[in-house]
Amino acid sequence: MTVETRLNELGIVLPKAAAPVASYMPVVVHRGFAHVSGQLPFVDGALVTGRLGEDVDLEGGTDAARACGLMILAQLKLAGLLDKVERVVKLGAFVSSTDDFTDQPKVANGASDLMFEVFGEKGRHARAAVGVPVLPLGAAVEVDAIIAISE
Amino acid sequence: MTVETRLNELGIVLPKAAAPVASYMPVVVHRGFAHVSGQLPFVDGALVTGRLGEDVDLEGGTDAARACGLMILAQLKLAGLLDKVERVVKLGAFVSSTDDFTDQPKVANGASDLMFEVFGEKGRHARAAVGVPVLPLGAAVEVDAIIAISE
Amino acid sequence: MTVETRLNELGIVLPKAAAPVASYMPVVVHRGFAHVSGQLPFVDGALVTGRLGEDVDLEGGTDAARACGLMILAQLKLAGLLDKVERVVKLGAFVSSTDDFTDQPKVANGASDLMFEVFGEKGRHARAAVGVPVLPLGAAVEVDAIIAISE
Repeated sequence: MTVETRLNELGIVLPKAAAPVASYMPVVVHRGFAHVSGQLPFVDGALVTGRLGEDVDLEGGTDAARACGLMILAQLKLAGLLDKVERVVKLGAFVSSTDDFTDQPKVANGASDLMFEVFGEKGRHARAAVGVPVLPLGAAVEVDAIIAISE
Repeated sequence: MTVETRLNELGIVLPKAAAPVASYMPVVVHRGFAHVSGQLPFVDGALVTGRLGEDVDLEGGTDAARACGLMILAQLKLAGLLDKVERVVKLGAFVSSTDDFTDQPKVANGASDLMFEVFGEKGRHARAAVGVPVLPLGAAVEVDAIIAISE
Repeated sequence: MTVETRLNELGIVLPKAAAPVASYMPVVVHRGFAHVSGQLPFVDGALVTGRLGEDVDLEGGTDAARACGLMILAQLKLAGLLDKVERVVKLGAFVSSTDDFTDQPKVANGASDLMFEVFGEKGRHARAAVGVPVLPLGAAVEVDAIIAISE
């Protein structure tokens, strides 16, 4: 089963892969590892902005992290790598947070759960989730990834 | 000499490997690299919380970073990798900090010095240390790692 | 053409490679990947300190990110790796930011554009750029890197 088929099965429609905000590439593949640039959460083409603990609640943050995960998949698809995913190795989740919001892991689960839904055991990854005061364009969450690619 | 023997020699008792706070894995090994998820500082089973520059002093922060390092070792042990460490490649240290606390490198040394104590030259690693406003569960420090594993 | 020749052609003089602020190494090479520790921006030997949105403007921040990039090149040179760069794989840019500064990507371009100037297509990389409240020694920007090295 292709990953596209699995996405259809799950009723997941990938967003249009966002162009880099600046002078870098969305994905670089080298020696079997794809490094995916930090992806921002776009839902129906609109960036999810705000800060957890302030104007974004836990559900909104989790949805935003899932949207970052969908954008990672969209970038892999654009790069022709979706069916070459051998393992989701690591996700880095940066959560825009007030000083007293400490549920970054629950927020980041939005992206982590998506990877498991789509890739099964191959989607189980290592992760770091941290709070940050602010993200590019005021985004609520940013997620980058290291993905092992079959050669 | 096994790493366990060296730990005994140093009088280091590893903590119980903490279960992931959420839906991800503590360690993923792929093509000779182990990616260890961001580990939080547990001392005698209790999470070290707080913020450098506020309610955690430099010594407390350094101890917390060391506790994160011990948890990285505990995760490697649980995964059966402790004696397969070929090189500690990179540590990422996130230090919960007030806006005017700038000694993140000294704090992160708690983890870095531990790696050198335990692994000697193989423990010398690259590192990034940054301040963050808040971490999961209010932790004072979080450290993730990339470890080269012999195959 | 060696990278040194290209640097001369561009009129770029590398800074003196900064010694690590603490107990870690500037560069670790393992299995074809060089991990470069987080580098701080030194211009004429002085650290660029401050915070974007406060006392560092966009141009100053971009220059600081470029200075971090130059320090990455200086570290690669010191390690004898400058002419072995096969690909700049990933940059991680941490930008000291007030809560309402959201132009981290433009700031990080200071480092990204430098890599493209110096290495051409081999310099095109994946990237994550995030805001942080504070960095080591009060630096305005910190950039770390993963560089593929020919063996």
